[in-house]
Amino acid sequence: MAENVLELQAQVASSVSWDWTIWLLMGAALVFFMQAGFAMLETGLTRAKNAGNILMKNLIDFCIGTPAFLLLGFGLMMSEDYVAGIIGMPNLDILTKFADGSFSEILPSFVFNLVFAATAATIVSGAMAERTKFSAYCIYSGIVSLVVYPISAGWVWNSEGWLAKLGYIDFAGSSAIHMLGGITALIGATFLGARIGKYSIDKKTGKKVARAIPGHSLTLAALGCFILWFGWYGFNGAAATSVTQLSQIFVTTTLAPAMGTLSAMLYTWIKNGKPDVSMSLNGALAGLVAVTAGCADVDPLGSLIIGTVGGLLVVVAAEFIDKRLQVDDPVGAVAVHGVNGLWGTIAVGLFKHSDTLNEDGVVTSARGLFYGGGLHQLGIQALGVVAIAGWVVVTTSIVFFLIKKTNGLRCSAQDEIDGLDISEHGLPSSYGGFLFDPEAIEPSEIIELPEGTVAVDEAVPVVRKDKPAPVGVKISKVDIITKPVKLEALKVALNAIGITGMTVTNVMGYGMQGGSVEKYRGVDIEVTFVPKVKLEIVVCKVPVELVIATAKKVLYTGQLGDGKIFVHDVEDVVKVRTGERGYDALQDVE
Amino acid sequence: MAENVLELQAQVASSVSWDWTIWLLMGAALVFFMQAGFAMLETGLTRAKNAGNILMKNLIDFCIGTPAFLLLGFGLMMSEDYVAGIIGMPNLDILTKFADGSFSEILPSFVFNLVFAATAATIVSGAMAERTKFSAYCIYSGIVSLVVYPISAGWVWNSEGWLAKLGYIDFAGSSAIHMLGGITALIGATFLGARIGKYSIDKKTGKKVARAIPGHSLTLAALGCFILWFGWYGFNGAAATSVTQLSQIFVTTTLAPAMGTLSAMLYTWIKNGKPDVSMSLNGALAGLVAVTAGCADVDPLGSLIIGTVGGLLVVVAAEFIDKRLQVDDPVGAVAVHGVNGLWGTIAVGLFKHSDTLNEDGVVTSARGLFYGGGLHQLGIQALGVVAIAGWVVVTTSIVFFLIKKTNGLRCSAQDEIDGLDISEHGLPSSYGGFLFDPEAIEPSEIIELPEGTVAVDEAVPVVRKDKPAPVGVKISKVDIITKPVKLEALKVALNAIGITGMTVTNVMGYGMQGGSVEKYRGVDIEVTFVPKVKLEIVVCKVPVELVIATAKKVLYTGQLGDGKIFVHDVEDVVKVRTGERGYDALQDVE
Amino acid sequence: MAENVLELQAQVASSVSWDWTIWLLMGAALVFFMQAGFAMLETGLTRAKNAGNILMKNLIDFCIGTPAFLLLGFGLMMSEDYVAGIIGMPNLDILTKFADGSFSEILPSFVFNLVFAATAATIVSGAMAERTKFSAYCIYSGIVSLVVYPISAGWVWNSEGWLAKLGYIDFAGSSAIHMLGGITALIGATFLGARIGKYSIDKKTGKKVARAIPGHSLTLAALGCFILWFGWYGFNGAAATSVTQLSQIFVTTTLAPAMGTLSAMLYTWIKNGKPDVSMSLNGALAGLVAVTAGCADVDPLGSLIIGTVGGLLVVVAAEFIDKRLQVDDPVGAVAVHGVNGLWGTIAVGLFKHSDTLNEDGVVTSARGLFYGGGLHQLGIQALGVVAIAGWVVVTTSIVFFLIKKTNGLRCSAQDEIDGLDISEHGLPSSYGGFLFDPEAIEPSEIIELPEGTVAVDEAVPVVRKDKPAPVGVKISKVDIITKPVKLEALKVALNAIGITGMTVTNVMGYGMQGGSVEKYRGVDIEVTFVPKVKLEIVVCKVPVELVIATAKKVLYTGQLGDGKIFVHDVEDVVKVRTGERGYDALQDVE
Repeated sequence: MAENVLELQAQVASSVSWDWTIWLLMGAALVFFMQAGFAMLETGLTRAKNAGNILMKNLIDFCIGTPAFLLLGFGLMMSEDYVAGIIGMPNLDILTKFADGSFSEILPSFVFNLVFAATAATIVSGAMAERTKFSAYCIYSGIVSLVVYPISAGWVWNSEGWLAKLGYIDFAGSSAIHMLGGITALIGATFLGARIGKYSIDKKTGKKVARAIPGHSLTLAALGCFILWFGWYGFNGAAATSVTQLSQIFVTTTLAPAMGTLSAMLYTWIKNGKPDVSMSLNGALAGLVAVTAGCADVDPLGSLIIGTVGGLLVVVAAEFIDKRLQVDDPVGAVAVHGVNGLWGTIAVGLFKHSDTLNEDGVVTSARGLFYGGGLHQLGIQALGVVAIAGWVVVTTSIVFFLIKKTNGLRCSAQDEIDGLDISEHGLPSSYGGFLFDPEAIEPSEIIELPEGTVAVDEAVPVVRKDKPAPVGVKISKVDIITKPVKLEALKVALNAIGITGMTVTNVMGYGMQGGSVEKYRGVDIEVTFVPKVKLEIVVCKVPVELVIATAKKVLYTGQLGDGKIFVHDVEDVVKVRTGERGYDALQDVE
Repeated sequence: MAENVLELQAQVASSVSWDWTIWLLMGAALVFFMQAGFAMLETGLTRAKNAGNILMKNLIDFCIGTPAFLLLGFGLMMSEDYVAGIIGMPNLDILTKFADGSFSEILPSFVFNLVFAATAATIVSGAMAERTKFSAYCIYSGIVSLVVYPISAGWVWNSEGWLAKLGYIDFAGSSAIHMLGGITALIGATFLGARIGKYSIDKKTGKKVARAIPGHSLTLAALGCFILWFGWYGFNGAAATSVTQLSQIFVTTTLAPAMGTLSAMLYTWIKNGKPDVSMSLNGALAGLVAVTAGCADVDPLGSLIIGTVGGLLVVVAAEFIDKRLQVDDPVGAVAVHGVNGLWGTIAVGLFKHSDTLNEDGVVTSARGLFYGGGLHQLGIQALGVVAIAGWVVVTTSIVFFLIKKTNGLRCSAQDEIDGLDISEHGLPSSYGGFLFDPEAIEPSEIIELPEGTVAVDEAVPVVRKDKPAPVGVKISKVDIITKPVKLEALKVALNAIGITGMTVTNVMGYGMQGGSVEKYRGVDIEVTFVPKVKLEIVVCKVPVELVIATAKKVLYTGQLGDGKIFVHDVEDVVKVRTGERGYDALQDVE
Repeated sequence: MAENVLELQAQVASSVSWDWTIWLLMGAALVFFMQAGFAMLETGLTRAKNAGNILMKNLIDFCIGTPAFLLLGFGLMMSEDYVAGIIGMPNLDILTKFADGSFSEILPSFVFNLVFAATAATIVSGAMAERTKFSAYCIYSGIVSLVVYPISAGWVWNSEGWLAKLGYIDFAGSSAIHMLGGITALIGATFLGARIGKYSIDKKTGKKVARAIPGHSLTLAALGCFILWFGWYGFNGAAATSVTQLSQIFVTTTLAPAMGTLSAMLYTWIKNGKPDVSMSLNGALAGLVAVTAGCADVDPLGSLIIGTVGGLLVVVAAEFIDKRLQVDDPVGAVAVHGVNGLWGTIAVGLFKHSDTLNEDGVVTSARGLFYGGGLHQLGIQALGVVAIAGWVVVTTSIVFFLIKKTNGLRCSAQDEIDGLDISEHGLPSSYGGFLFDPEAIEPSEIIELPEGTVAVDEAVPVVRKDKPAPVGVKISKVDIITKPVKLEALKVALNAIGITGMTVTNVMGYGMQGGSVEKYRGVDIEVTFVPKVKLEIVVCKVPVELVIATAKKVLYTGQLGDGKIFVHDVEDVVKVRTGERGYDALQDVE
């Protein structure tokens, strides 16, 4: 029976560790899915002409990071042969020693650490969007996964790392991943310079002022935010080793972003008079970043406070970076990841709810300042962020400097204006068949070609062919420019006076509309162009004055923006189907 | 050895409960992800001008619901101190007693119940879309999570709840969540009134008729539907406690929506002649809602029937609500969640496949009517839905009434017409750089400003500068309006006669095209505007008659819609690069 | 105590198997989510006018496949009553024997196999997109899930299947699912013929050449790719039975797509001079498909090579199919799934890292050629793919032939040109309120109707009403067509000379721009139409010459594309709000 019990013990032990490895891997898959979140967020917050480029960057950093981390990064970070608490000795055991089976336990750790490494690289792409050479992105992204991230992450997460040994707490990477990514983003964006049109000289004050460059789809940005939040349950939770801890992580990872969203929303609501959508999305992400370090060490109340502060910080920081530092960060990556990564790591020193003990009952990490632990843990947390920040600033400055001097960092002004989709990837538009229908292609198989042999003239027996416009008949084109909402009523009214043919175009009207100033991410947008429709009608029999009178009746409200009507002379009209011209050509449409 | 075994027993027990807690939390993450599904579904089915507002609502209801549920709702619903089977005594133990460790088991339950509570609130946003004040939404959304949902949900899911004690079965919330959300949606939409333009008076019959207001992206709606279905495996499965039960839930949660989709598709196919896309999406959701109550209690055959009926019900109900009740529900939330939540809960009384016994072998819930259980369970299910519906009708009517009288429920007509993005959030458009490129910003850093000093005239040596248009030279503009498919052929043919410059605009043509009537969600859409292209060509040397003859050859098919050609006089042309005017300015483009 | 231990053994055993069933079901949910990935990928890579149709197909194949697989397919594939290693005897036990409890273990297997069956059917929809009758799709999709897929999949995965018994290795379905889907796609696309406009006769060479038909949203395609990759961790991992195996699967399923993306990107970069976005997405999918067969049997190094080759293969194959075979596959399904499914299955015979032994220590599957196993396993893999390919070619050819002869396979040319959304589903556009705002609906409740009684004339006291245009006053319309980037500067400059009213339209300009040729998925796109803006200004007091001079100053760069200015005569202008005409009507806008 003893053997039975021993065997059972082994089974139970393995069963328990199985649970957590399955969850670890599921969590890693969730973290991988965050790449989709970043891709949607960054694509949505930038312009359509760069969409393919941003998507490509988010895909490719993971793919370049994978061999880079496999060949060097993973060893530098997690090697058991870890030198002086600072750096691991890399090896290629994963590739060469797989067969002997002893490496199977390293595999989940590799996948787990890889997806985190890729996150660090991805954060940067948003801040450097819309003006970076794709080749430069590939190079620096590879170097981050190869060297920059693994070394400082090893300090935190290798059990032999010097910060780990000091009792530094950054459970899922507020500093090791997010602050690292955010600082790299700041340095990269500074080396790059602002996008064309982002800053201009105000003629009155002579000062350089920021202008808003809105992204092309807030819907994509929101989708990205939801995907990131969803994936974050894996990001923060994957490394949990007990149900109690995992439950705590789920609670803190829910409360902090909820409060971050609320505080960002309320702050913009109070400050600007309206709750800002994209800043609320950033508030959610700020809360997530901030709680990442302490997710397994702070209590629910602590996470509420950390998230609330994070939401305020991100709004203030984004504005400060944009307007004061004048560093152009299209998606707010520095404010979200850099500033809140820093805040979240420091916050552990304030809100850590209890001491962490080792097996011998010795305190390895103390409780936070507000929980009676004094300044001890706060000091260690501060030391850690200073060390990591210092490492990143030095290494990435060298990296960006060298790239700038050799390969070049920024694309040409012309490429930037044309958009990186066409200049870097030969893609006329990521939205090909949408704004302009590619079905406008020679339908050679079924439809008559220009050189075709169909006798057009014979097919038009109904009228005397190619008859010139009747002499003395006046044909007029009436253009009506008005609000879209009036279109249907106008159509009905014009029908009633005998006009059934018209052409409608979506246009933008510019005029004296009072010019209300709105905010986009804290920066003014002048709303001077407003959507209008242009109706074009050509009349001959129906009197122009009747058209004008009818349109006026329908369009009049007495408010600004009722619209204008223009009358032009038309020399001739041809109806293709029948060959009729002039007066005759219009008899079915007016 | 005894100790060994006891220890092992403890380990096994904890290992087993660990499994299910990990799964419970993973399931909760899936339910959270459903927020993304709702956001995409609702955004896709409404108009672009309200996209940011809808996204914001879907984000913010979760974020407001979180503190609301933490502070009061969770206690009202799940407190161990539950009074008279009706209401729990709230406490703040999660915030204040975390440190003593005894609360760790409450944490997963809190996260789990929170994500469900947020779902109930989110359902309503779709029905009230496009016309609700954002502040009103925040208020009622908070109250739903604070009081309305928790109290009736406690009846069902607190083990001391009066419905739970009666043996009422609503495993994952057909009634407690979806019907509650659907009824709230119905009451809210009624209080609000229909969107401007949704109903109009038919001139012939004098009756008020519904008109379709199509959403702006069926793709987003479909993505939302897929995300919801995916998340529903967590929604229905998270609370499972055995592998057998979880397997059963996965089967029923797959069969019901598949059949719901098919029956909705076939019904619209037969009725309208074409399978309706957005109704098929609703059919999937209807099947999911309907099987939610019985997912762990009906067999595969039962779930097939429940889903099939659900798919039919949603189509009939959506039309009934839209056309007969004339309540304007832009996304069909009442039909999907309200009607099918009701149906699914009742269906448990019909299809429950076996009796549920307690530990003493006593029947706590009987099998359904069709499985030989008589009317007993059906009666209990009916009692439950009446009780919950009554509670919701009374409380939410009061809530909406009070909001209407104080804060106001509906935005102004002008705000509604302008769109809630601009009026509520100061966002000119959620699709900023897309329809209109924000790169149209003063490129002050690299491109010459208006006041610049570049000597334009000196840069134009090729022609006599600013030469007036040659006297007596006739310049004409030819506008060709035709089908997009003809564009390429026309371009080629015009090239062949020497015209290489043209401007193309996507326009909508309105004319006598036979006016086929299509359906959108069961309501007629008049397809009177059809996509056209407008080609504008300015010619001088090339004879207008040659342009007309060429265009006619290419465009002629003899069918309606071949297009029209208009000829206008042009007074002058300037080519900016060279300064050439008139005849000369056109020599490279015609 | 003995009983205790026995009981414990049972508990441990069940606990262990529970883990894996939970994971199996979670994996199945991930595979279900891949339907969303396919839907987004295929929708993004096709045109907007078919978006609803593609979405519907991706939804409906799962929903049709579900009852088909339930009623027949699952039995044909997995029945314990399996005849001659070739075919199972179907039964309806799931529906009829659920109550006796003995079937509970079949339930997870049913869900698991169902989601894979649906994947096989979905693959085909992309290759046959934009021209297939919806009814034909429903029929063949049902037949694939009913008969075609289950029979050959049974050979591979039923423990009694003849390929399984030979030691054939296809862990997650490179051949059984992807190659089967890819071959079906090839046959289907061949039966259908190419989309209108896809191939045309080159006038110089007289040869048929392929043309690019870009999809309408690369963003959706990228989102689809990310979702598929995420889901693939379930696709490859769900059937794992140990933590070691699952870890190995996660590593190989990460390395292969990363390398596939890189090799596809580098190949297009070297060949075409620019890294192709959509081919990189296909490279990721190619790597995933290729590693699917061997994900649990190859080592990390093997997966690196398999993925790298897969990425190259997909680019070469897509071009070969498009240009040489001239089979029109809009999304590249044949190259991704067919070619790489084949490659991945064969690759197991090359890279399988060790022998697989049964319980008696007998080798059931040998290691691969490159790992010292000789040709044995390679031969079995080759036999398997030939057998499955033969089965698919014969059966699906018959299916498509019969559908073509009875129901018809392809929609009419007119339906194809109009788009399947309108012709098959009565949906004017999947992007209703976007390109054209449906708010253009008679706002009968709040806004004056044409027949309204508001006395317009009385409301216009400021001017003599309906005054004719002043005699002798010249009104001119100036149209400026230029680059979008110049809009803002132009606006400012025109403001400065007193013009504050203008109308702006997004247009496409065609002209002599050097005509750079770009590539889309290896096929040339002529970029002859470039985005422009058209500014329309009507002036009376401001001299036309001043407008022209100002515009020239702002627009001039000396490069091609600076733009043109056209001047037209205007006969009359009416300002709706005031009733002013001619000169007066323009005094606030110029």
